[in-house]
Amino acid sequence: MTKIQLNPVGPLSQLSQFEVDGLKQSVDSELYKLFRNCSLAVLNSGVEEDDYEHIFAPYEDFQINLVRRERGVKIELINPPAVAFVDGKLIKGVHEHLFAVLRDILHMGSKYHFEESQVSESRYLTDIVFDMLRHAEAIKVGSDPNVVVCWGGHSIGEIEYKYTKKVGYQLGLREMNICTGCGPGAMKGPMKGATIGHAKQRYNYGRYLGISEPSIIAAEPPNAIVNELVIMPDIEKRLEAFVRIAHSIVIFPGGVGTAEELLYLLGVMLHENNKYQVLPIVLTGPAHSKEYFESIDKFIGETLGPEAQSLYEIIVDDPEEVARTLKRKQEFVHSHRREIGDSYLFNWSLQIEPEFQKPFIPTHESMAALNLHYSQPKAELAAALRKAFSGIVAGNVKAEGIKQIREKGPFTINGDAKLMAMLDDLLESFVAQQRMKLPGSSYSPCYQVKKG
Amino acid sequence: MTKIQLNPVGPLSQLSQFEVDGLKQSVDSELYKLFRNCSLAVLNSGVEEDDYEHIFAPYEDFQINLVRRERGVKIELINPPAVAFVDGKLIKGVHEHLFAVLRDILHMGSKYHFEESQVSESRYLTDIVFDMLRHAEAIKVGSDPNVVVCWGGHSIGEIEYKYTKKVGYQLGLREMNICTGCGPGAMKGPMKGATIGHAKQRYNYGRYLGISEPSIIAAEPPNAIVNELVIMPDIEKRLEAFVRIAHSIVIFPGGVGTAEELLYLLGVMLHENNKYQVLPIVLTGPAHSKEYFESIDKFIGETLGPEAQSLYEIIVDDPEEVARTLKRKQEFVHSHRREIGDSYLFNWSLQIEPEFQKPFIPTHESMAALNLHYSQPKAELAAALRKAFSGIVAGNVKAEGIKQIREKGPFTINGDAKLMAMLDDLLESFVAQQRMKLPGSSYSPCYQVKKG
Amino acid sequence: MTKIQLNPVGPLSQLSQFEVDGLKQSVDSELYKLFRNCSLAVLNSGVEEDDYEHIFAPYEDFQINLVRRERGVKIELINPPAVAFVDGKLIKGVHEHLFAVLRDILHMGSKYHFEESQVSESRYLTDIVFDMLRHAEAIKVGSDPNVVVCWGGHSIGEIEYKYTKKVGYQLGLREMNICTGCGPGAMKGPMKGATIGHAKQRYNYGRYLGISEPSIIAAEPPNAIVNELVIMPDIEKRLEAFVRIAHSIVIFPGGVGTAEELLYLLGVMLHENNKYQVLPIVLTGPAHSKEYFESIDKFIGETLGPEAQSLYEIIVDDPEEVARTLKRKQEFVHSHRREIGDSYLFNWSLQIEPEFQKPFIPTHESMAALNLHYSQPKAELAAALRKAFSGIVAGNVKAEGIKQIREKGPFTINGDAKLMAMLDDLLESFVAQQRMKLPGSSYSPCYQVKKG
Amino acid sequence: MTKIQLNPVGPLSQLSQFEVDGLKQSVDSELYKLFRNCSLAVLNSGVEEDDYEHIFAPYEDFQINLVRRERGVKIELINPPAVAFVDGKLIKGVHEHLFAVLRDILHMGSKYHFEESQVSESRYLTDIVFDMLRHAEAIKVGSDPNVVVCWGGHSIGEIEYKYTKKVGYQLGLREMNICTGCGPGAMKGPMKGATIGHAKQRYNYGRYLGISEPSIIAAEPPNAIVNELVIMPDIEKRLEAFVRIAHSIVIFPGGVGTAEELLYLLGVMLHENNKYQVLPIVLTGPAHSKEYFESIDKFIGETLGPEAQSLYEIIVDDPEEVARTLKRKQEFVHSHRREIGDSYLFNWSLQIEPEFQKPFIPTHESMAALNLHYSQPKAELAAALRKAFSGIVAGNVKAEGIKQIREKGPFTINGDAKLMAMLDDLLESFVAQQRMKLPGSSYSPCYQVKKG
Repeated sequence: MTKIQLNPVGPLSQLSQFEVDGLKQSVDSELYKLFRNCSLAVLNSGVEEDDYEHIFAPYEDFQINLVRRERGVKIELINPPAVAFVDGKLIKGVHEHLFAVLRDILHMGSKYHFEESQVSESRYLTDIVFDMLRHAEAIKVGSDPNVVVCWGGHSIGEIEYKYTKKVGYQLGLREMNICTGCGPGAMKGPMKGATIGHAKQRYNYGRYLGISEPSIIAAEPPNAIVNELVIMPDIEKRLEAFVRIAHSIVIFPGGVGTAEELLYLLGVMLHENNKYQVLPIVLTGPAHSKEYFESIDKFIGETLGPEAQSLYEIIVDDPEEVARTLKRKQEFVHSHRREIGDSYLFNWSLQIEPEFQKPFIPTHESMAALNLHYSQPKAELAAALRKAFSGIVAGNVKAEGIKQIREKGPFTINGDAKLMAMLDDLLESFVAQQRMKLPGSSYSPCYQVKKG
Repeated sequence: MTKIQLNPVGPLSQLSQFEVDGLKQSVDSELYKLFRNCSLAVLNSGVEEDDYEHIFAPYEDFQINLVRRERGVKIELINPPAVAFVDGKLIKGVHEHLFAVLRDILHMGSKYHFEESQVSESRYLTDIVFDMLRHAEAIKVGSDPNVVVCWGGHSIGEIEYKYTKKVGYQLGLREMNICTGCGPGAMKGPMKGATIGHAKQRYNYGRYLGISEPSIIAAEPPNAIVNELVIMPDIEKRLEAFVRIAHSIVIFPGGVGTAEELLYLLGVMLHENNKYQVLPIVLTGPAHSKEYFESIDKFIGETLGPEAQSLYEIIVDDPEEVARTLKRKQEFVHSHRREIGDSYLFNWSLQIEPEFQKPFIPTHESMAALNLHYSQPKAELAAALRKAFSGIVAGNVKAEGIKQIREKGPFTINGDAKLMAMLDDLLESFVAQQRMKLPGSSYSPCYQVKKG
Repeated sequence: MTKIQLNPVGPLSQLSQFEVDGLKQSVDSELYKLFRNCSLAVLNSGVEEDDYEHIFAPYEDFQINLVRRERGVKIELINPPAVAFVDGKLIKGVHEHLFAVLRDILHMGSKYHFEESQVSESRYLTDIVFDMLRHAEAIKVGSDPNVVVCWGGHSIGEIEYKYTKKVGYQLGLREMNICTGCGPGAMKGPMKGATIGHAKQRYNYGRYLGISEPSIIAAEPPNAIVNELVIMPDIEKRLEAFVRIAHSIVIFPGGVGTAEELLYLLGVMLHENNKYQVLPIVLTGPAHSKEYFESIDKFIGETLGPEAQSLYEIIVDDPEEVARTLKRKQEFVHSHRREIGDSYLFNWSLQIEPEFQKPFIPTHESMAALNLHYSQPKAELAAALRKAFSGIVAGNVKAEGIKQIREKGPFTINGDAKLMAMLDDLLESFVAQQRMKLPGSSYSPCYQVKKG
Repeated sequence: MTKIQLNPVGPLSQLSQFEVDGLKQSVDSELYKLFRNCSLAVLNSGVEEDDYEHIFAPYEDFQINLVRRERGVKIELINPPAVAFVDGKLIKGVHEHLFAVLRDILHMGSKYHFEESQVSESRYLTDIVFDMLRHAEAIKVGSDPNVVVCWGGHSIGEIEYKYTKKVGYQLGLREMNICTGCGPGAMKGPMKGATIGHAKQRYNYGRYLGISEPSIIAAEPPNAIVNELVIMPDIEKRLEAFVRIAHSIVIFPGGVGTAEELLYLLGVMLHENNKYQVLPIVLTGPAHSKEYFESIDKFIGETLGPEAQSLYEIIVDDPEEVARTLKRKQEFVHSHRREIGDSYLFNWSLQIEPEFQKPFIPTHESMAALNLHYSQPKAELAAALRKAFSGIVAGNVKAEGIKQIREKGPFTINGDAKLMAMLDDLLESFVAQQRMKLPGSSYSPCYQVKKG
């Protein structure tokens, strides 16, 4: 049995008796399980694997405990994965991540009862998002509005991966900071690139912000460059955190997760009250991803229409232009916030409807019930489409989703025939391009599109 | 009308809509009144005045508002006292204090309903004390166990004041930090002295920690040297904060407040379970205070007995010896905590009975009902005596207490005849030595001791 | 034998073999003696004594050595004075001062041969002043032009001393920094006061700059608050350092040293080319020093005339007004430097004639030869008078001067009868007010004014 | 005409009139030319080009001036290369490099006359090396002995380059710092890798130290990751700086420059007095470089013998093992230094003979006169061979060398027949593997080996 004790880092190293008791190892404690699993995911930092079972299986005897000592609370690891250690010493970045997990799990546990997080008042839900981010010190006073949220696939090829590094490097040279969902692929490349760019600019306080949530973190273990890790309670709050903390958004090639993010973003931005929002959005990839973006753009055009298309810009194979564009538009973000007196650090003025905030639990029933027809406002269609993609992500990589698929077969999605055909084509292309899961396994779809 | 807006300082500068709404100016809001009054007290930093009415009267048109701006929440002051300004600019220390008040009032408001703070479970009450201190970042990871809590009168003469500075200077030279109740006299002198001692030792992170509570802060406005200000919910939690955060305690000459503190401390330490506690206590003053300490010591001897007397050491007129003693004993504190695995920063192992934790609200009834007889355990007698002194402090300087005295005349204290005689003598001597209130006003007692 | 080794502090802790050899203890080495004596003076930090013999006599067996170790050069002290130690540990401020002495002695030794420092080219001499200050990191890039040079007596009464503290406090509250000659009295008070003012303003990088020179340091040991100590090669370079680094100058009551400084300053400022210099000068003291300033002002008026008088302002008994005035005028200094493109940190544009730069060695001959007549330009008269005062300072407290007086009796000063009468009156008043030497000894003059 | 002014960075931003005058632009000033050319090289940061003429030719109208302003000395660039700018703003790293060049050129200029640097006393030459490094703040007090000097070719293939990055990454994960000659290839890769490793370990003060010299800097422009740049006066002092500052040395594949470095190192280490030196040396490269190291090892074996071979270890294709080995041996370096009391930061105890210190100026005469025969001590043969390689480097990429080759044809090297054959083979293999010059140009040898 390997046992290792970790000194506390960060402000929350002093815990009360209540808090320690709340995380005591116990078969019944949901909170303990959450803590253990998120910690195990974090300890798999850098592992290129998106199958949570492959990640968790070898570590059934892994345990995590809190130990109160004179200098603060220590985390004790029993039989941890070797991958996060260098010559027997835990990588400092991963060490910090464990305490970030502890911090966020405790905060969720003490403040929000899980039922409560389903209350329907929009203002209250936004407040939780804000409070989690602030408590995690991700809302840093005095920092410039320079957070570029980067979305994109965890499973991308070498050429696309290198391209994300180059974009990150150009952003880093311009002293912009990176926020991603943490994980491999397009979530890691921009951070790595930015690290080199920041080093050349002697920008010592580069932020590599990773925002995750319990059900996805095992499939997307944060890499150790992430120097601010935040675990949000669920995918909806994670998405809201992204768009409220972003000063601009870059979308790299990706699969269904990226599609979910894009649909969410466009659905929100299409709201009447967000007409004057300033939020630069750029879709970009290397030359060989040109077609990919064309098909995405076409799908958006035919589902959400030209207004949605006008919200973003597509830049192909030009990392410098991407960075220059965002740097230039950053000025507008800055002046817009100042004008309306909104915080530089959290976009309060963005209107997000409960439809986009309330947790969507994908089941065979809820998936089948999605309203995927043209005859509704664009924003609502976007919300429904985003849920469809969200369900497929769950069926692909989230524990709860996979379990359901195993038991009852693929989700059925149905709706307007033309829409279904388009959706099927898009999903097919993701499969063909190996964007569903990391290469090495053959992918069998967790969904079935009813086309008529 | 003077209006001034203050930029946020500290981590809590980003507030949610809910939080700002909760502190909106409103006649009905208890929380707003608390915020306003504590802020007004803080703005009287350095004023040598302990009559809250004199302090508040000239500022009836003072208002305080929160304003959300792009860089965070600003505090807006309308018609603030001029005393905290230098050439029209607020002293930075006071500026910080205002945000400390905001931080603590908000935290009390959001987490503890005032009824709740009267729940009787000891563990829960201790947890509030811990949580308030931690939230205020007064529990600093990595710091040495070097916090010397200094108690003593706000109303002391020039010779005693100079002596407190000298003790502070010697403590500062030995890189110890100072915690007091904030206010003038013995609460300010040690900090001033330590500042010079720290400067000579290039000890750049000197802590001058002030712990106050809403009902006393107006009578003891924190001086601007205080670089960590914490507002606890009530006097009992303030006292508990002192003893749990202390690594040693120095008691200078003082009046009823100091007597309350001493009785509280001895009462707690006399508990069976605290037999092996390591908490150095030194009573000290200049040569001319020798008699003062003799009478205190005698009073303790005759009420609580020699065991209580053995808990402290009296050092007269030797600042260096005081500092040397504490520095030497600090080692024992250090090794004791390490041995039992208790936190260096918060003395969890100290047992405090609910009797010392539950808020005592002094009224004519509760004061008259105090059980001041010998026929009870020493610790309980100490608890009762501490309440008696607490009530007199309230009658002297706290708004609620003064109001009652005005309406119904002095509190009546009664009990064992011999005890009453001794108590009366002690109180008389405080009056004679002008320790009850700052000189300049004639003091008329707010109490009446029934001597049989 | 007590022996203590000190770890290196500051950037110069790595020395070459050559450098260590150059400071090897040796009876013949002038550099070693200089190093030993300055170090011994520094170790008497805080001692209120101006008789170098009293300071040095008890420490004949004091030695200082350099020891090369793996982490850098250590300073080894053998039989050091106990006064600078707290519980056997050297005060950190004094520890730093020792390495400052080492740094400056080494730099003088390696760069300037002592004969060279007597070369007459003004530009070259100014360059040495600049280079010594820069090497000592006293020319801090990025700092505001806020250095207030404070001059005044080392031997002043309690009332005057408290007044200097109050002025320092007010300057500190306005975030101005203090530079003095280091030593007791008016050289220590402003720093102590500013420390408290800076603490209240959370001004963490307060500068308490002490500029000394080898022949005076024993009579004016730097107090430990001084956090930047610079040893200039001689009194003339020390004076030039003061005026070129100053953004304003405050003159408190003092004796012949202060008179020397004032005469130097006015002599320099009267130069044709300095007509447009912006250098605020304030003479100030408590109410009871009013007459003192009247007699000084009168002396200036009758020797150097109204033009010289117009260069300064006299403010009596108003510390706040002093600080407010300097703060306000600081703006002009700032804008003037910007306009002419001169450094904020070193006043290159100030013209200083060789007459004020070349070392004056006071001997019976050189003192007797001083040209103290009206029939010369004011600036030259100022230069001659400054030398007369400089000689008296030497005769009072400097080793070389005292030795001469012992051997040959008092210096004779002669010149214009009226001037001599005035000078004699002024000196008499210094004697009467105990400004010549620290109280406790009777003063017998080291000079004799020939009045006709 | 483009003109840009740069604010000062670093401690030397305040210059005296003398210093500014000394660098005034002037056709006659050697110092100005040195300053201009080194600055131009630095501005070509990141350019993959080793032909100084290609680098300098487009910038004949480039000028650099010093401008004294109120905040310090600015550097003014006229018509600088665009490559170092991002959206018109100079990369901060390059900005710093320019001030490093200024600092070192000034320091050389003021302290060492160039003739003097040829004095033959070993101690004096070592002192210059120490003084240059200390003045550049490259001798950092308090840092651990963790500087890994990495040598290797500027012209290496993609596979070898990636390998150097991986080694750097593993070193960075172990919190070791990197020192190279600055330039592309093996001098850049380890720094880039270490940057990522340091980021993961939150090692915020990673050092990427580049040591160059005026005649090579144009061929090896420092990349912007270098965060400490030092310009030594000549190649011999640069080599001495490397070995005295190193705590271990890694040698990657390279060409004649790398061979020069290896021969220098072995020649020095073979000295009798260096028998007990602790200096780990590892030769490493990817699998495909195995043969390369075999031929180097064979050459060393047959020229300097098995004793020389025993000084290093060869590790093929195992970056982790390289880092682990050096980390482990670091302990020995640490304890050895402590034992003999030598500085952790500068290896004073290493004996270096004048033969390795005195500048070798390659000319047709001096190259022809090299004593390349077996019949001499190994260390002397190593010294002669190192000069031969040094001359070829000069003929390949240094201005002075290229000029001579153009005028008089290739250098002739002659000596022992067997030795010459081996040397010729080695050089041939460098040519064949494109290690002489960056690919893209055909290489015509600047040397001719006389084989009998």
